[in-house]
Amino acid sequence: MVRVGVVGGTGYTGVELLRLLLRHPEVTLSVITSRGEAGRRLDDLFPSLLGACDLAFTDPAEADYSACEVVFFATPHNVAMREVPALIEQGIRVVDLSADFRLRDVALWEHWYGETHAAPELCANAVYGLPEVNRDAIRAAQLVACPGCYPTAVQLGFLPLLEAGVIEPSGLIASCGSGVSGAGRQAKLGSLLTEAGENLAAYGVAGHRHLPEMEQGLSGMTHGAVQLTFVPHLVPMSRGIHATLFAKLTSSDVALQSLFENRFAAEPAVVVLPQGAHPATRSVRGANTCQLSVSQPRGRDTVVVMSAIDNLVKGAAGQAVQCMNILMGYRETMGVDGIAMAP
Amino acid sequence: MVRVGVVGGTGYTGVELLRLLLRHPEVTLSVITSRGEAGRRLDDLFPSLLGACDLAFTDPAEADYSACEVVFFATPHNVAMREVPALIEQGIRVVDLSADFRLRDVALWEHWYGETHAAPELCANAVYGLPEVNRDAIRAAQLVACPGCYPTAVQLGFLPLLEAGVIEPSGLIASCGSGVSGAGRQAKLGSLLTEAGENLAAYGVAGHRHLPEMEQGLSGMTHGAVQLTFVPHLVPMSRGIHATLFAKLTSSDVALQSLFENRFAAEPAVVVLPQGAHPATRSVRGANTCQLSVSQPRGRDTVVVMSAIDNLVKGAAGQAVQCMNILMGYRETMGVDGIAMAP
Amino acid sequence: MVRVGVVGGTGYTGVELLRLLLRHPEVTLSVITSRGEAGRRLDDLFPSLLGACDLAFTDPAEADYSACEVVFFATPHNVAMREVPALIEQGIRVVDLSADFRLRDVALWEHWYGETHAAPELCANAVYGLPEVNRDAIRAAQLVACPGCYPTAVQLGFLPLLEAGVIEPSGLIASCGSGVSGAGRQAKLGSLLTEAGENLAAYGVAGHRHLPEMEQGLSGMTHGAVQLTFVPHLVPMSRGIHATLFAKLTSSDVALQSLFENRFAAEPAVVVLPQGAHPATRSVRGANTCQLSVSQPRGRDTVVVMSAIDNLVKGAAGQAVQCMNILMGYRETMGVDGIAMAP
Amino acid sequence: MVRVGVVGGTGYTGVELLRLLLRHPEVTLSVITSRGEAGRRLDDLFPSLLGACDLAFTDPAEADYSACEVVFFATPHNVAMREVPALIEQGIRVVDLSADFRLRDVALWEHWYGETHAAPELCANAVYGLPEVNRDAIRAAQLVACPGCYPTAVQLGFLPLLEAGVIEPSGLIASCGSGVSGAGRQAKLGSLLTEAGENLAAYGVAGHRHLPEMEQGLSGMTHGAVQLTFVPHLVPMSRGIHATLFAKLTSSDVALQSLFENRFAAEPAVVVLPQGAHPATRSVRGANTCQLSVSQPRGRDTVVVMSAIDNLVKGAAGQAVQCMNILMGYRETMGVDGIAMAP
Repeated sequence: MVRVGVVGGTGYTGVELLRLLLRHPEVTLSVITSRGEAGRRLDDLFPSLLGACDLAFTDPAEADYSACEVVFFATPHNVAMREVPALIEQGIRVVDLSADFRLRDVALWEHWYGETHAAPELCANAVYGLPEVNRDAIRAAQLVACPGCYPTAVQLGFLPLLEAGVIEPSGLIASCGSGVSGAGRQAKLGSLLTEAGENLAAYGVAGHRHLPEMEQGLSGMTHGAVQLTFVPHLVPMSRGIHATLFAKLTSSDVALQSLFENRFAAEPAVVVLPQGAHPATRSVRGANTCQLSVSQPRGRDTVVVMSAIDNLVKGAAGQAVQCMNILMGYRETMGVDGIAMAP
Repeated sequence: MVRVGVVGGTGYTGVELLRLLLRHPEVTLSVITSRGEAGRRLDDLFPSLLGACDLAFTDPAEADYSACEVVFFATPHNVAMREVPALIEQGIRVVDLSADFRLRDVALWEHWYGETHAAPELCANAVYGLPEVNRDAIRAAQLVACPGCYPTAVQLGFLPLLEAGVIEPSGLIASCGSGVSGAGRQAKLGSLLTEAGENLAAYGVAGHRHLPEMEQGLSGMTHGAVQLTFVPHLVPMSRGIHATLFAKLTSSDVALQSLFENRFAAEPAVVVLPQGAHPATRSVRGANTCQLSVSQPRGRDTVVVMSAIDNLVKGAAGQAVQCMNILMGYRETMGVDGIAMAP
Repeated sequence: MVRVGVVGGTGYTGVELLRLLLRHPEVTLSVITSRGEAGRRLDDLFPSLLGACDLAFTDPAEADYSACEVVFFATPHNVAMREVPALIEQGIRVVDLSADFRLRDVALWEHWYGETHAAPELCANAVYGLPEVNRDAIRAAQLVACPGCYPTAVQLGFLPLLEAGVIEPSGLIASCGSGVSGAGRQAKLGSLLTEAGENLAAYGVAGHRHLPEMEQGLSGMTHGAVQLTFVPHLVPMSRGIHATLFAKLTSSDVALQSLFENRFAAEPAVVVLPQGAHPATRSVRGANTCQLSVSQPRGRDTVVVMSAIDNLVKGAAGQAVQCMNILMGYRETMGVDGIAMAP
Repeated sequence: MVRVGVVGGTGYTGVELLRLLLRHPEVTLSVITSRGEAGRRLDDLFPSLLGACDLAFTDPAEADYSACEVVFFATPHNVAMREVPALIEQGIRVVDLSADFRLRDVALWEHWYGETHAAPELCANAVYGLPEVNRDAIRAAQLVACPGCYPTAVQLGFLPLLEAGVIEPSGLIASCGSGVSGAGRQAKLGSLLTEAGENLAAYGVAGHRHLPEMEQGLSGMTHGAVQLTFVPHLVPMSRGIHATLFAKLTSSDVALQSLFENRFAAEPAVVVLPQGAHPATRSVRGANTCQLSVSQPRGRDTVVVMSAIDNLVKGAAGQAVQCMNILMGYRETMGVDGIAMAP
């Protein structure tokens, strides 16, 4: 059994993390903190936990993590970087679901987030928590920086193509759609059912904070200079990310289907669909799974990859637990092997 | 471990039953049959099972249930009544999710379903699978007839009031809403997103097959003659049933909140909300839970009960597994203690 | 042509009012005010107006209504009661879509709204803008108080029954569902797609501000004491209100269908459906229509009425324009005869 | 006034066409035919027409179009090509909303539709009904072939870029999303709310019948060889198409915003958004408008165009009426100037 703490946890990523941790066979949830909700029962904030959890939020100022082996951060960016160093010093291992340690280049982080990084010395050592790329490093990590939701879907989709060197890395395109939970549990006009419902629109075309994270990750898979055009769309659903990826093939006879099947054959959280099938976010809802398919429409030189995840599971909380399992030496799917809920 | 068979299972109740059974720690799924889908892999029909299940549907004509201790029927009505007698004779216990054995009065069943019952002799002995009412009988049952979705939500809501004799049983009203999965996995115009989406409408006001089932169950809770006016509505969501119940109080000083809390204190699948809270289908999505609250608006003599379940879980597959756990002597929540998925 | 002003108009009722007024053949929109949005173009706030409107919001402090014959208030409650008296004095006729003048009993208003009414002297003379009840009074009104959305649907449904004296007025029940636009264009957690989507829940069971308005209106239709139990539900759709009404018949042989058909035969904004049909909010989306049907399930003594409107049209902006047409002597359907948009 | 006939009209395109034609100031709807629904009142099939229309469907065998000047086909493909020749011979002008006459290359049509074309001689003379490209030809046309929904959104988006010759025509990418009404009013599993709701997935990646139509149209705008990779997605909403278009700029200093604004300055059905704004399908719902914006993310050489229409209006029925207005010499926006309905 591992004693675990959670910092934050009042957002959608948080309640999803609780849903998984509270049923994980090897986890004891010791403490969960929230400045704004201190003293409030979790099941009062999240009625979906009624009957499943008797905990209340602790004030961070009074929280004692010393009994924890692992602490998760399910906070907005700008929190973990202030609190993680003290935990690391105590020898506690940290799984950060926020953006604070995703970019190794501190200056790049500061450019996109518009502020000074509070723990730049940790950025280089943080391990990017994409098990399909970094499993060994995660195993030994002190600090895991879990990928964002879009970056998970996009990187897994381009991974076999870039590693095999069969596409031009300078002209990558990712047209993605996300459910509204990606915007967080915050009272924003644009996230109202009356605004986001019955609607499809792009956003952030000029630049989205997940772009440098994706370009960093994709660059690590290849040798050429990566340029990605990334257009996210808000889709009238609660959960799910679907990425449709386009790239130009540099070779005319790549066995795309087997390239994908072989690359992910041993991966417990990736399913490559049969040729001609299309991934769907509904088929991974609630599950820690990325469904992928690859296609070469009309035999032309543009390859199309489709990638679907649940943004709150494989795109956040599920992947975080998967990383914790790797850290702790547990079976990698432990506590995150729930089957997708459809319909 | 119990070896289990499933008859049918190509509808939404079926895939939900599979989602639960495939992760149940004491269940081995031996055989699943479908006439229409014989030979097809389950994960081809239901991509949400990809990576979780290697089974294929067996032709019913070739299915051998002899190794099964329990067989579930997840079929439309009119199937179980033809096939159950042979299984019972072999000593196999049956959990029927269909409507075939829900009514003890065979003539009433034949009136509402418009056909002759094929196994009338079993109707009287079938145990109605509502654990909160019939737990002991379920434990010993050969054949469990699982309640319908609306009947589960409605009966649990009226239960404390009728048992305590504090309402007039002749003027009960149930105004209910159901997600579209209640209409089944069938290509029907009225279930299209373009028809059922962005819409609210009642249906079946003149008479719905769940009405006699509810009146039978409610009558068993009281001594007076029960009359229920039942209006179901189709709600633009996939899952969930919400019942709003109205009755006239016969006494002016009933401690309603404690009446409800006491009645369900020991029930693992029922949560009574704090006074003033409102149940929500999203808070029970995917969970085998009924959330209840009771209210006496403006202190007048009309009591209002609100009841929310997931129609596919506590209203179908989850309740069926709960019944199987009781049958087998397992912990009653085993395999159905998953936390609701919100958002 | 009538010169018209609009106060407020930054909410959903407002943009719907603009949609109708900007295409009304006899209306010139002279001025529209907003404190918060002064100077901003309407089509910047509401991109649905792009290409249809060059106006900008005026600061209320600088607005000159003297050229207007009619001024609409599309504001939250508590605004009109402060500003209407000055307009009335100038001889301008006012159509108020807010709640400020809906209750004739000032004390009752102050109880439910928790504040002192700023223009109590106007409450008695304001005409309640339900044309099906008050057409003649509206024609001559200086101040029209447009009904709320739930009250429109509920009152039209009970109207024939109460006028004919065939139900017990003391045991009325209204179980209603509303789209999320009923909660206004405000950043509220409960209105997020991630909260209100895929969900059904009641709210305000203990008491809703529309209740006294409904009881006032229903009392005016009959002689006995009216008591209404009103339970609103939030439904995962943008628009629409559906009311399911229950009452006890006092006579066993009422020709319900013809009672309804006769009562509304001449009403341009009410459609009585054929026996056995069910109103649907999608069939009135965008239209100034109330669809009604009446039923007596199983011939018992409980009558069920179903009523569907678009909460923003017949429940707000459309009804306001209908009232203005009556005020001005125009054809009553002018500018509000658009056909419902389905799907 | 023009006397108009409609063939078909039992689908979503049909009811939308009726919504527009029944309120068009210069249209008299003389006859509407349906084989399957002959004799049935329109408002029985489409309750949204209740109170707005007394017509019934006529059996095509008994329909007399001789009094009509214009006949619309709102049928699946494969109907118009059999019936149009006889109408043309009588001098009746035809506006075909189906796919039968969209491709000038008969062999190409036969390849994609898998059957022999019944009126190949008309294909060359049919005018493609995209007013922004073909206004003069439409004015004189005998037979107008209205564009498909995706082709309208995609062609309008690429139009300024291809005409100006500033992109590489061989590497065009269109990542599009459609509401479920695009799949028609047919009982299909994939269109159920329980399947299409809360889901995002691509479909038809291998090849979609709108692809050759788009490539034909795009080729007409430029001189190079056009190759388009087209990926449509099914989005959980009823209406709307959003196209996100990608192309490689051939010049580094194109004034994209003014290029778009100038090209569409005089177009009544196209709105170019201010720089940095994003089109949204909700802002054109019910309106005959295409909203466009253009962007050059991070100043790189990939241009991104976003295009939003209502698939049933500018993508079908509205564009058809716009074409009829041009044919008849009416104001082009007559009857299709309704403001978008949001929320």
